[in-house]
Amino acid sequence: MTEAFSAYSSLTAYMNAIGVRAKGAARAMASAPGSKKNEALKLAAASIRDRSDQILDINANELAVAKEKNVTDAFLDRMMLNGDRIEGIANTLEDVAALDDPVGKVISKWTRPNGLEIERVRTPIGVMAVIYESRPNVTVDAAAIAVKGGNAVILRGGSECIETNKALFGCFSGALVKAGLSENAVQFVETPDRDAVGALLSGIDGNVDLVIPRGGKSLVARVQSDARVPVLSHLDGICHVYVDRDTDPRKAVDIVVNSKMRRTGVCGAAETLLIDAAIANEIWPAIAQALRDKGCEIRGDANIRKLDASVAAASEEDWRTEYLAPILSVAVVDGVTGAIGHIANYSSGHTESIVTENFVTAETFINGVDSAIVLHNASTQFADGGEFGLGAEIGIATGRLHARGPVGVEELTTYKNVVRGTGQIRP
Amino acid sequence: MTEAFSAYSSLTAYMNAIGVRAKGAARAMASAPGSKKNEALKLAAASIRDRSDQILDINANELAVAKEKNVTDAFLDRMMLNGDRIEGIANTLEDVAALDDPVGKVISKWTRPNGLEIERVRTPIGVMAVIYESRPNVTVDAAAIAVKGGNAVILRGGSECIETNKALFGCFSGALVKAGLSENAVQFVETPDRDAVGALLSGIDGNVDLVIPRGGKSLVARVQSDARVPVLSHLDGICHVYVDRDTDPRKAVDIVVNSKMRRTGVCGAAETLLIDAAIANEIWPAIAQALRDKGCEIRGDANIRKLDASVAAASEEDWRTEYLAPILSVAVVDGVTGAIGHIANYSSGHTESIVTENFVTAETFINGVDSAIVLHNASTQFADGGEFGLGAEIGIATGRLHARGPVGVEELTTYKNVVRGTGQIRP
Repeated sequence: MTEAFSAYSSLTAYMNAIGVRAKGAARAMASAPGSKKNEALKLAAASIRDRSDQILDINANELAVAKEKNVTDAFLDRMMLNGDRIEGIANTLEDVAALDDPVGKVISKWTRPNGLEIERVRTPIGVMAVIYESRPNVTVDAAAIAVKGGNAVILRGGSECIETNKALFGCFSGALVKAGLSENAVQFVETPDRDAVGALLSGIDGNVDLVIPRGGKSLVARVQSDARVPVLSHLDGICHVYVDRDTDPRKAVDIVVNSKMRRTGVCGAAETLLIDAAIANEIWPAIAQALRDKGCEIRGDANIRKLDASVAAASEEDWRTEYLAPILSVAVVDGVTGAIGHIANYSSGHTESIVTENFVTAETFINGVDSAIVLHNASTQFADGGEFGLGAEIGIATGRLHARGPVGVEELTTYKNVVRGTGQIRP
Repeated sequence: MTEAFSAYSSLTAYMNAIGVRAKGAARAMASAPGSKKNEALKLAAASIRDRSDQILDINANELAVAKEKNVTDAFLDRMMLNGDRIEGIANTLEDVAALDDPVGKVISKWTRPNGLEIERVRTPIGVMAVIYESRPNVTVDAAAIAVKGGNAVILRGGSECIETNKALFGCFSGALVKAGLSENAVQFVETPDRDAVGALLSGIDGNVDLVIPRGGKSLVARVQSDARVPVLSHLDGICHVYVDRDTDPRKAVDIVVNSKMRRTGVCGAAETLLIDAAIANEIWPAIAQALRDKGCEIRGDANIRKLDASVAAASEEDWRTEYLAPILSVAVVDGVTGAIGHIANYSSGHTESIVTENFVTAETFINGVDSAIVLHNASTQFADGGEFGLGAEIGIATGRLHARGPVGVEELTTYKNVVRGTGQIRP
C-alpha cells in the first residue's frame, strides 16, 4: 500500500519512494490486459458517483477557504465541483474505458529483402508526472488516460483543492485494487511542499519519463525551464480566424463569434481575426455587430479603423496577446497569403481557422499554416480532445515533437520496433 | 548567400544570423516539392563524386594533422575517407532521394458525428541542429535526411575534420542552389569555437526546434544536460542476446558471434549474452569456442564459471558496461522470465534479441522487453537505419518520446491536425 507522507523522514525520501513505486507499477501496467484497465476505469466512475456527496462536501469546504484568500472568480470556478461536474468526471472515465486499447497496436509493418519482418508496435511511455493547478477533474482525466495507455502516473495538484483531489484519487486508487491492478499505477503527491515539483522535474533518478504541466503560463514556463526530462505542454493559445474573400457571410459571422465568445477562457478561443481586404468593407458591419451584441471589445488595425471609427487601435502587443477574455484584435490582410504571413509572425502554433467556400484557397491555408490544428469552416473552439473523439485529453500540445494538438490516450503512448527473423546475421 | 564567420562582429551575432536564416529556410522547405528535394540530393551525390579527389586530399591533410595529436586509431578510422566511403556517401544520397516523400502523408483520418473530418498529416519538424564528432559522413547523412523531410538543418561537426566537412557541405550547398531550393536549408557552423554548441543548445532565440547529438557519451551527456530544446539521442547501447532452451544451436552460435563480433564498435553490438539455465551446459562449449576463435574475451557469472573454469569473473559493473570492444559478459538466467528480468535491470533500452524456435517464448520476450528494438532470431547488428530500409539514419533513439530506434527521414517529421468542416460551431 502507498504509505503516507508522514511515514517518511524527508521529502526526498518520500519522492524517491514514489518514483521507485511508479517505475515498478509501469512495468506491470505495460502488460495489463485491456479488460482489467477498463474495469478499473468503470469502477472508479461508480465509486466517484457513490461518494459524490462526500466529495462535494470536501470541495465546498476548500472553496470556502479559497474565497477567504481573495482568489479570482475564474480560479474558484475552476476548482468548484457540483453534481453535473461530478457526473461529467464519471462519464469521462466511461468514455475512456470505451476506447480501443492502444497498447500492442501495430502502427506500421514491412518486410526487408533479407526476410526480416519489421513492425512498429505501440507501447506505453512509462511513468508520467502531471503537475496541475486547481482543477480537480485533471486528477481523474490524467489517471484515466495514464491507466488506459498502460502507464503509471504521479499526480501533483494545486494546494487549494488538495483534499478534493485526494478524495477523487482515493476513488481511483480503490478501483485499481479492486480490478487487480497495481495501486501504484496512480499516485498522488499529498504534500503541498513545492520542492516536490522540483523532484518530479528532476526525473527522480530516472524514474519519470515525461512531465506534463497543466495550468497557467508561469507553471508551464517553470516546468519547461527546469525539467530534466521530456515535457509535453502548451504555453499559449493565440488562435486566429481568417475570413476569406470567398466566404459565406453567415458562416463567417457564426464561426467568428463562436470562436471568440463561446468560452473566452479556453486555450482554443480565437484572439485575432484576420479579414481579407477584398471583403473587409462588405462583411465588417455584420461581424462587428454580432461581436458587440455578445459584449466583445474590438481592437483593430488602421484599416479596420478606417472602416469603423468606433474601434480602438490595436498595438503591436495586441497581436501577441492571449486575452482569454472578451477582447478580439482584428487586422485586414491581403488575401490568404497575407493571412498565412500574419499567422507565421504572431501565432503560438495552437489553432487557426479559415472561413471560405473556395477549396483551393482552403488548401493553400491548410498547407501554409504550421500550427498544431488547422481548421476549414469550423470554430477554433473545436480544439479539444473530447471534440476530436479522444475520450479525454490532458491538454493541447503546442510543441513540435512527439504529439501536436489534443493529447489523449494514444498520444501518451510510444512504440517499439519488433524484428522477426529466421536466423539472419548481418553480412 | 551564407556569409562567412569572419563577416560577423561576434560569435553571438554569427549564430543568431544562422538561426534566423534556418527558420526562414525551414518555412520555405516545408512546401518544397519532392521533385526539387530529390534533385538536390542527386546533384549533391554527383558533385561529391566529381570532387572526390579534392575531398580526399583535404581529408588526407586533416588525418595527418590528427595523427600528430595522438588520437586513437578508432578516431582516425572514423574521420578517414577513401574512394569506397565517398561512393557510400554518394549512394546514401541517392537512396534517400528514392524514398517516398513523407511530407503531406495522411497518418490517420476519421470523421466526427458532427461531420468534422479530422486528418493527421505529416509535416516537417522545422529547424534541427546536429552536433557531431569526427565522422564526415554525418555531414551528408544529416543534410540529406533534413532536406528530404522538408526541414532546415544546422551542422556542427568536430574540429579535427572541419575542412573535410566543409568540402562535403559545399557540394550539398551548391546542389540546393542548382535545384532552386534555399541554400540556407543546410548551414555549417564553420568556427570551432565551443560556444557555438552552447548557442545551438539554447535554441538560438526559439529558432532551433530539435537538437541531435551524434558522438561519444560525453557529447551526448552534455547535450542532454544543457539543451533548452527537445533532444533526440542515444546514450548507451548495452544490447543483449538471450539464447533460449528451445534454440537451434547453429542459429544461436551464428547470431551470438555476429551480434558481438561483426563490428564491436557500433552501438548495436551485443555486450551481454544471457543463456537459459536449461540449455547452458549443452550449448556453452560451441558458443565459447566460436567466440574465442574470433578473439573475444569472455567474462562470466558464477554459473558460467562452473561450466568453464577458464572464464574470468564478471563484476556487477560488467552488466552495466558498453564495451564497444571484443569483450562479452555472459550470465545464465532462469528461462525467458529470467532474461526479461536481467534486461529490465541492466539494459540501456537500445536493442535485444532472443534466439528460440519456440514462438510462444519469442512473443513473451517481445512483449516483456521494453527496448527500442526487440529481435527474434536475428543479430542485434541489424539495429541500423539502413538495415531497416530507412535509406539513411541520424542515429538510434533510446529515449521514449517521439521516435525510438533508427531515426531516418520519416522519424524526423511531425504532424498537424487538419479539420475540415462545413460551418460547424461548437455548442
